[in-house]
Amino acid sequence: MRNTMIGTVHKYLTGLQDQICLALEDVETTARFGRDEWVRPEGGGGCSCVLEEGTVLEKAGVNFSHIKGQRLPAAASARRPEVADSPFEALGISLIVHPRNPYVPTTHANLRCFIAQIDRDDPVWWFGGGFDLTPYYGFEEDAVHWHTVAKSACDPFGDDLYPKFKQCCDEYFYIKHRDETRGIGGLFFDDLQLEDFDTSFAFVRSVGNHFLPAYQPILQQRKDTPYTDTQRDFQLYRRGRYVEFNLVYDRGTLFGLQSHGRIESILVSLPPKVSWKYDWLPEPDSAEATLYRDFLRPRNWLQKSSDRD
Amino acid sequence: MRNTMIGTVHKYLTGLQDQICLALEDVETTARFGRDEWVRPEGGGGCSCVLEEGTVLEKAGVNFSHIKGQRLPAAASARRPEVADSPFEALGISLIVHPRNPYVPTTHANLRCFIAQIDRDDPVWWFGGGFDLTPYYGFEEDAVHWHTVAKSACDPFGDDLYPKFKQCCDEYFYIKHRDETRGIGGLFFDDLQLEDFDTSFAFVRSVGNHFLPAYQPILQQRKDTPYTDTQRDFQLYRRGRYVEFNLVYDRGTLFGLQSHGRIESILVSLPPKVSWKYDWLPEPDSAEATLYRDFLRPRNWLQKSSDRD
Repeated sequence: MRNTMIGTVHKYLTGLQDQICLALEDVETTARFGRDEWVRPEGGGGCSCVLEEGTVLEKAGVNFSHIKGQRLPAAASARRPEVADSPFEALGISLIVHPRNPYVPTTHANLRCFIAQIDRDDPVWWFGGGFDLTPYYGFEEDAVHWHTVAKSACDPFGDDLYPKFKQCCDEYFYIKHRDETRGIGGLFFDDLQLEDFDTSFAFVRSVGNHFLPAYQPILQQRKDTPYTDTQRDFQLYRRGRYVEFNLVYDRGTLFGLQSHGRIESILVSLPPKVSWKYDWLPEPDSAEATLYRDFLRPRNWLQKSSDRD
Repeated sequence: MRNTMIGTVHKYLTGLQDQICLALEDVETTARFGRDEWVRPEGGGGCSCVLEEGTVLEKAGVNFSHIKGQRLPAAASARRPEVADSPFEALGISLIVHPRNPYVPTTHANLRCFIAQIDRDDPVWWFGGGFDLTPYYGFEEDAVHWHTVAKSACDPFGDDLYPKFKQCCDEYFYIKHRDETRGIGGLFFDDLQLEDFDTSFAFVRSVGNHFLPAYQPILQQRKDTPYTDTQRDFQLYRRGRYVEFNLVYDRGTLFGLQSHGRIESILVSLPPKVSWKYDWLPEPDSAEATLYRDFLRPRNWLQKSSDRD
């Protein structure tokens, strides 16, 4: 049964990887994805698809990995001590898109499945994942679209899921030392076990299948917006926050570093060009100030606009 | 006695801060240090001197802080559980120089003093600090000069100190996930208590007073070296490693984040412009490859060159 589970998850995730790479290449006019298959000495391996220096996409990484080990790393077993010493397999897809145009938000998505075997019992399994959006210049209609699609992914599995996983996302992608959210959130779930494996996996597929409908329209609509050096500078400055979050807080990155993952695949999430400025603050009432005020804090994007918080 | 200790350390560190800022301004042709005094709501404060977008120095930060609290943060008390719940004061100077020219190495130095009070006993105190160098293009003679000065700072206090603190530096500034040192090291010490407070503080002053003689000649000699876009690109790429180290491993940064330090002063260490490239490797036998092969691993720089490892 364990092998059937792993086989189906493997097939879905690699299929989704191909589909997303094709869709991104469809928008990108010059660069193409390179494909690196890699083997992990301790067991398992993966395939990293990376596109760099494109016209539309400055950097995009769509990584699949399937790793095997004798002992779950601390970042994965912290809340499941009963499986800490068990052999495990982890399958996941993780993607990041850093567009060149500052009006197009950065996006990140991840789906992962852990399967651990304790003695000869049934396997212990759980899923995690989600997708989130990090704008540099905020557009209310993009945020509403993003969260509408996120909600559609969840609703067939229960009305409680979207609010719960939306809140988890706001809490997870929070840069504590800046008191800012990383972006406008989306969905985040971990330790997911719905009724049974099939239902849980169907939910995870629904999240995966809603990623492109959530991101593509925003990418299409904003990618040709004219921009100035000031706007590009602000994008590079805000990308610094992305680096701060990923290296200081992100459990996925920590899991990768702790599990001796393939460093270049883990750190492909880091933006291509970044800047830090000392004690920089946006001009009051500027578009940059609006990002902080209206987008980098948890909001309910699906309330009627008249009573939105 | 506690207040006398704090007073002397305070006076020395703020004097050193002024001296280093003046010396750096002497080399920089256009930009000047700004000076931000700040107060920490939980107790204490500091003064951050920051210079940005200079001709010679792309960014330099020389920070003094004197913070007070009721309970040492985890990053400082991990190895001293007996003082974890005691009121403390921490005084420190921390500096970073990111030169513009890729032939000038980045440098970092830090001196710090912790004083904790357990009941009415004598205060518990210890020092930490050191200085280290991160070249982008390696020069053997610069490395030998740097370590010769480091050794001179230590030798009056015992022949064992330089080898010990040089090794600590190599071990501390090690980027585990890259299997690279951050640079060519220098000195690093923590939990330092020599015979008594006065001797320890004299040693710390010796380290502080040797920073400029170690760095200034290298800065002077390399700052006008002509360079190409390729060399600038390599500098920005290698600065990514600096960010990775500081955000993933650096105890000083963690201490700052955990003690609700002034974020902009803590993160002034991050380089002004940085890039990440996926799976980039230097051309074999290039100057870039030489950096990895000959400089980013622990070496004994003060052996005769004929038998240097």
